[in-house]
Amino acid sequence: MYPDSIKKIIDSFRNLPGIGYKTAERLAFCMIDFDKDKLSEFSEAICNLRDNICNCSVCGNISDNSICSICANLDRDDSILLVVEKPKDIVLFEKLGVYKGKYHVLNGLISPLDGIGPDEINLSKLIDRMNSSEVKEIILALKPSIEGETTMQYIKKMLENNNVKISKIATGVPIGTEIEYIDSLTLEMAIDERKNMN
Amino acid sequence: MYPDSIKKIIDSFRNLPGIGYKTAERLAFCMIDFDKDKLSEFSEAICNLRDNICNCSVCGNISDNSICSICANLDRDDSILLVVEKPKDIVLFEKLGVYKGKYHVLNGLISPLDGIGPDEINLSKLIDRMNSSEVKEIILALKPSIEGETTMQYIKKMLENNNVKISKIATGVPIGTEIEYIDSLTLEMAIDERKNMN
Repeated sequence: MYPDSIKKIIDSFRNLPGIGYKTAERLAFCMIDFDKDKLSEFSEAICNLRDNICNCSVCGNISDNSICSICANLDRDDSILLVVEKPKDIVLFEKLGVYKGKYHVLNGLISPLDGIGPDEINLSKLIDRMNSSEVKEIILALKPSIEGETTMQYIKKMLENNNVKISKIATGVPIGTEIEYIDSLTLEMAIDERKNMN
Repeated sequence: MYPDSIKKIIDSFRNLPGIGYKTAERLAFCMIDFDKDKLSEFSEAICNLRDNICNCSVCGNISDNSICSICANLDRDDSILLVVEKPKDIVLFEKLGVYKGKYHVLNGLISPLDGIGPDEINLSKLIDRMNSSEVKEIILALKPSIEGETTMQYIKKMLENNNVKISKIATGVPIGTEIEYIDSLTLEMAIDERKNMN
């Protein structure tokens, strides 16, 4: 029913998560009205992504070069590492603008049920970094789930003999949330980890 | 904060309607995990669209060739034309599968407030078709709005001297809708255009 060139665009959009057939149709039809330059830019952006994107050889973050802009930045503090699950997490911390150390991206979490062991995530490079540089502190910023906790415990054990301070980000009630909507596990942890006020 | 190749993808996605910054970020990050073939296909699909899509020289529908597949189809009835506002409308009628005539796409509606007169929409070709072929009936399937009604009245007047039957699709209460949610203008028209049942 559609010309071939529209059909192919619809198919490509449908590969994206959260985009069903109707949305893909709508987007494809909108693109017909784009000028040719805009279409060229879009197509080039995708080729660019295909050809250039790789993982930083130091921290595992996504990057256009073999070393990402954060690792290459000499102004940042080498002595502290914030360990995250995926590259997108870095963006969230960078947006805060308060963290001046470096990162380490695991690109996954240990999950025995899914067959993901310590070797499947970016841990060996973390050990390399610990041995070769002067890292004094590690902050684990993994999600508070079974996989996250398992991974954090594993890293803690793995670095036992290194003389390094290890902490994990706090779990508790998020700011601005009604207490009544918080799940019981989070509440329990929020009580356990209560903070002295006087 | 992002590598250049991600930034460009985000910018391209943001050109699309209904896609804000957060969604564009999410889609771009998903595309990192695509395999290279999928990315090549996507990029080629866009180039294809840029280079091939044009308007059918007969009816104004979008097409990969100078004559669209419907106009080129000899099995379809040449004597009846369904006039629609935009190419996407054709898809809706084609999905019904009951209409076997041909189409004419105006690619717009007359709208004096927006500075769109009869010359700005695909009307001259409609006259050409009326004069050169054996069209016996025209069905106007434009939306029931001021612009739609104006355009339908204009076409009616324009074709006054041609010996052709002109009709417009019915306005009224859509099937499956609660009467209480229908606007007063539609209800008024539904009463005006009531259908005798005996």
